[in-house]
Amino acid sequence: MTNPTIPPLSRELEPALRAAIDNKTKPPGSLGRLEEVALRLGLMQGTLAPELRAPASLVFAGDHGLADEGVSPFPKAVTVQMVLNFLAGGAAINVFARQHGLHLKVIDAGVAGALPEHPDLIARKVMPGTRNALREPAMTPAEVELCFAHADRIIGDLHARGCNAVIFGEMGIGNTSIASLLMSALTGTPLEDCTGRGAGHDPAGLARKIDILKRVQARHGPITDPRAALAAYGGCEVAMMAGAMLSAASRRMLVMNDGFIVTSALLVASRINPAVLDYTIFGHTSAEGAHPKLVSRLGGKPLIALDLRLGEGTGAALAWPLVMSAAAFLREMATFESAKISNRE
Amino acid sequence: MTNPTIPPLSRELEPALRAAIDNKTKPPGSLGRLEEVALRLGLMQGTLAPELRAPASLVFAGDHGLADEGVSPFPKAVTVQMVLNFLAGGAAINVFARQHGLHLKVIDAGVAGALPEHPDLIARKVMPGTRNALREPAMTPAEVELCFAHADRIIGDLHARGCNAVIFGEMGIGNTSIASLLMSALTGTPLEDCTGRGAGHDPAGLARKIDILKRVQARHGPITDPRAALAAYGGCEVAMMAGAMLSAASRRMLVMNDGFIVTSALLVASRINPAVLDYTIFGHTSAEGAHPKLVSRLGGKPLIALDLRLGEGTGAALAWPLVMSAAAFLREMATFESAKISNRE
Repeated sequence: MTNPTIPPLSRELEPALRAAIDNKTKPPGSLGRLEEVALRLGLMQGTLAPELRAPASLVFAGDHGLADEGVSPFPKAVTVQMVLNFLAGGAAINVFARQHGLHLKVIDAGVAGALPEHPDLIARKVMPGTRNALREPAMTPAEVELCFAHADRIIGDLHARGCNAVIFGEMGIGNTSIASLLMSALTGTPLEDCTGRGAGHDPAGLARKIDILKRVQARHGPITDPRAALAAYGGCEVAMMAGAMLSAASRRMLVMNDGFIVTSALLVASRINPAVLDYTIFGHTSAEGAHPKLVSRLGGKPLIALDLRLGEGTGAALAWPLVMSAAAFLREMATFESAKISNRE
Repeated sequence: MTNPTIPPLSRELEPALRAAIDNKTKPPGSLGRLEEVALRLGLMQGTLAPELRAPASLVFAGDHGLADEGVSPFPKAVTVQMVLNFLAGGAAINVFARQHGLHLKVIDAGVAGALPEHPDLIARKVMPGTRNALREPAMTPAEVELCFAHADRIIGDLHARGCNAVIFGEMGIGNTSIASLLMSALTGTPLEDCTGRGAGHDPAGLARKIDILKRVQARHGPITDPRAALAAYGGCEVAMMAGAMLSAASRRMLVMNDGFIVTSALLVASRINPAVLDYTIFGHTSAEGAHPKLVSRLGGKPLIALDLRLGEGTGAALAWPLVMSAAAFLREMATFESAKISNRE
């Protein structure tokens, strides 16, 4: 895939959008952060009346050879089990997607086990789990490119069906470790400051995890190129998300960011084309230690902070109604003139 | 009205509720604050499968004699105009209530102008705006009691129709001043630390407002009794909210708290019966300066903080989907056993 071109925001609309927001029947600025989101949606879509259509919740799943080293307290088999749980409708993201009318699709980007056919499963397995990054590159450059190509087709299909917003999520035992490695390499932050408890480490487990990740880092040496970082560390789900974010932004679709692993994919995408951030809304700040640091590095201001550390896109899905509210107030509220309300004394 | 008895939370269910939450297919604790909310809902309703039924968004409206002193940059007439805007469906709270399926009702607790009959208007005008608290008590003790009696009937009617959750909101030009006076009297906090910009003061306007409020405070002397504070300062909408909160909690209904003015009513209610706080979920922290202080005084941990300062119950309505999500994950998610997922290595 060549890097897609991302159109600039419609900055010429900014004065008219600000005026439309200020003319609603409320004191100026009194809808706070929602006004920023409304402005951004208008700039993204190039309209004074932004609409969010057929929003999709995508859960990208993949396994990691590195998980064999014990970087997660959960066994690798849980990735397949959780994908089956998504397909059966029993996971947290299913509950929140149903609640908010999000079209949930699970993408098998590189799960280690076989999966059944299912209408909600998009089968794009690049490999049955990446290679063990402690011993060799997790992926070949060709495998990384294949992830990007799959991603572009998935986003293209959604776009063709009228979707203009993607809520990103992931599942993959061991992938907080991958996110830590990507963050450390691409931001030059020491690994200790990029590493947290993941799905549930105790302090000893965390120390062991950091030790393993340092050995992975030493094995590959310094990396600053985003695609090279994906090849070295993996994983398929992270690469596919990074590609999907770039593809979404290139079609002026909203990219709804989630927790630490999704944000590591956004970091990769932003190093390929920083304009992806113009189309990104930051859903939440998670309780995973390094997430706030990475978000602030990307200039993000998450909408909610509820001490979540689950992944799956759950934080983004929980924040989603706020984005809907921002679009809705701009489209639906009365103006001072239409409601005949005295603006000031 | 005699003070309603508020039943204790069903603490005996706590171990079973915690086990149910931990058995869901997610790492323990990974849904963060949502797990606390789910636990609380279960304890309130005395069930392992809490449900939120027919949630009502109530906007209590009233005018204030004190507004004639210029404590707000908006003219008093805006209260009536905004009530008409609510009834026409054009205000921010209308948009968010529609989005979240909340049954919106506007209560005329004491608006200064005449209002038309309307299916969404509950007409319980105790007086056409309170008296000017700078010159005399805003309300008589009998008027305060009438507010409580009306409130109890409103909540009783909702409860009879199957509602078990109330999202509180208000409208009343000048009522941030009333909230400041109530907070200062009942918490012993200096007025300067209880006063903010309201709907949009500049620094000079704020200084003038504080000066007027100090004169009101001096006029009435120290007050520590919650009903006496309502009588001295008003207003009808605040008294009716305080009564409605007590009535809701007495029926094990959820009280969804909003911004500074709603929280001042909660403060009053909690001084009458602190158990009202057991049934309260704190929706949001507003940008009104004293709100975070008052919330933390009441032991509250708001779900969202979006720099809102609009009132109407908008912050509570925006936070509402998170409460729904908490109930939904507890009811709908699969367990490790049902989904056949390996809990740990």
